[in-house]
Amino acid sequence: MPTILVKSGGEAAMPEWQRYFADYAPGLDVRWWDDASVAPEAVDFVLAWDPEPGRIATLPNLRAIFGAGAGVDLITADPALPKHVPLMRMGPAGATQRMGEFVCWAVLSLLKDARRVALNQAQAKWKFLDPEHTAPQAPVGIMGLGNMGSRAAAMLQGLGFPVRGWSRSRKDLPGVRCFVGAEEFDAFLSETRILVCLLPATSETRGILSAPLFAKLPHGAGLVNVGRGSHQNLDDIMAALDSGRLCGAVLDVFETEPLPAESPIWAHPRAIVTPHMASLPSRRERAEYVAQAIADLAAGRPLANLYDHARGY
Amino acid sequence: MPTILVKSGGEAAMPEWQRYFADYAPGLDVRWWDDASVAPEAVDFVLAWDPEPGRIATLPNLRAIFGAGAGVDLITADPALPKHVPLMRMGPAGATQRMGEFVCWAVLSLLKDARRVALNQAQAKWKFLDPEHTAPQAPVGIMGLGNMGSRAAAMLQGLGFPVRGWSRSRKDLPGVRCFVGAEEFDAFLSETRILVCLLPATSETRGILSAPLFAKLPHGAGLVNVGRGSHQNLDDIMAALDSGRLCGAVLDVFETEPLPAESPIWAHPRAIVTPHMASLPSRRERAEYVAQAIADLAAGRPLANLYDHARGY
Repeated sequence: MPTILVKSGGEAAMPEWQRYFADYAPGLDVRWWDDASVAPEAVDFVLAWDPEPGRIATLPNLRAIFGAGAGVDLITADPALPKHVPLMRMGPAGATQRMGEFVCWAVLSLLKDARRVALNQAQAKWKFLDPEHTAPQAPVGIMGLGNMGSRAAAMLQGLGFPVRGWSRSRKDLPGVRCFVGAEEFDAFLSETRILVCLLPATSETRGILSAPLFAKLPHGAGLVNVGRGSHQNLDDIMAALDSGRLCGAVLDVFETEPLPAESPIWAHPRAIVTPHMASLPSRRERAEYVAQAIADLAAGRPLANLYDHARGY
Repeated sequence: MPTILVKSGGEAAMPEWQRYFADYAPGLDVRWWDDASVAPEAVDFVLAWDPEPGRIATLPNLRAIFGAGAGVDLITADPALPKHVPLMRMGPAGATQRMGEFVCWAVLSLLKDARRVALNQAQAKWKFLDPEHTAPQAPVGIMGLGNMGSRAAAMLQGLGFPVRGWSRSRKDLPGVRCFVGAEEFDAFLSETRILVCLLPATSETRGILSAPLFAKLPHGAGLVNVGRGSHQNLDDIMAALDSGRLCGAVLDVFETEPLPAESPIWAHPRAIVTPHMASLPSRRERAEYVAQAIADLAAGRPLANLYDHARGY
């Protein structure tokens, strides 16, 4: 019986994983990551978010690695990672839809000053905020125009937002003014009132959300980071929120996750902090996706969302 | 010089009103509601949200009354209201757009369990919630299909929500399954996972959002009230939230506004309370709208958003 080791949601999530996999891959033996009764050579698959470095290399008969989220940089950070084993990013259709919904919620939350409304509710304080802008006056700029960025762009346009996009290679999306590469980056930023980061985590994009970038946005712009925590400099974000250079931020990702309770961003009056929830499908959807990919692999069908080590995503 | 008395946002808001009216109606004398130096016979116009009963009848030369919001029931509740004076609901284009944005934000907030996420942020608690549904699995039912309901329906569909609508007279909206009248009400409710109330305040709709209605929704449905406070029974809503019959509520309107600080709904862990902000345009937009209506009136052009006393909205 093929065996999959799971490290996502902790050992407490295992009954759920086992129940869902029983529905979609009834022949699969689903075991907790640290189950000592599983011999390394018996492991066929791994489903993990943050495997400890070196561990995957101890599994000699591994046929595929499934990232538990859309980003797999906590897996590829492992210097001992066997590169000949296919590595798949999590990518059921639901993830793209979820990301679009979350981006729209985050952008609307900034437009409506939802953080301040929530703080007023906490104090039982009724206070009308007289928001000046509606969506047509608040162009959204999306960095990263893959499946998720494209879907978010379409949904935002349906809400009335003008949308601009920026990516490494030229993209052509309906209704979206697209900018490309380093030479068009400043022009992109200067036209953006709400910036959405959907970039993959690469060495080039590390720390991109920091003071020099904020200085190129219109004063009082909003920020949504649904890319990766490594994109952002949290100190710079807090300084920009304090000075009014940024009017607000919705941050779903952090360098250290779970975000430590002592992080000052939790209590910042202009920041909405969410627990890396933007695109993550439900466990049921992820189990279904992995089961399908295992079946595709067995049948020799091409694999979707295969990670490219050379490209870095 | 024509004179307008203003009662919206309190006396503190007067400098803002005067500044904006100076831009759009430079010949207008803009005075605070309780300005004792204005003779009653000198008043040409009124812009008010909640005039005290009997006051408007003391203004013999009044040419028009402008409601400060989309609903004018706090004006029409005045038994002495002179019905021959045109009464206009606030209705610049921005109000419909704003309402659509707010409804989408509120519906997405329920889908993403944003209230719980906010409470977790307040405790610096990182907790993934594993939300089961995406928009395609969460049909939204809109009660009231006027301009605002129609626009919200289109925007929600762009986000991927199936949309149903219910109204007194038959409506035909693209992509929306429309139900009509009392006989189709139960069928409408049974298919609704997130209910949005956009009804006008009439004697028929008073208290409609109460236990008997909630019992007809699927268990764990969400509620958004952006109609009027008189539509809802707050005790029934809290009981339904406590029992799980409703999973959450976003309430923008209340019988008594400002909502008193001692109301238990403020602290309810499943309720988002917002300060009647859904559709209200900025003061600048409202001043522009009133200035245009005054010009239309002077030129004998037809008036938009004229209140119909017989119809009740």
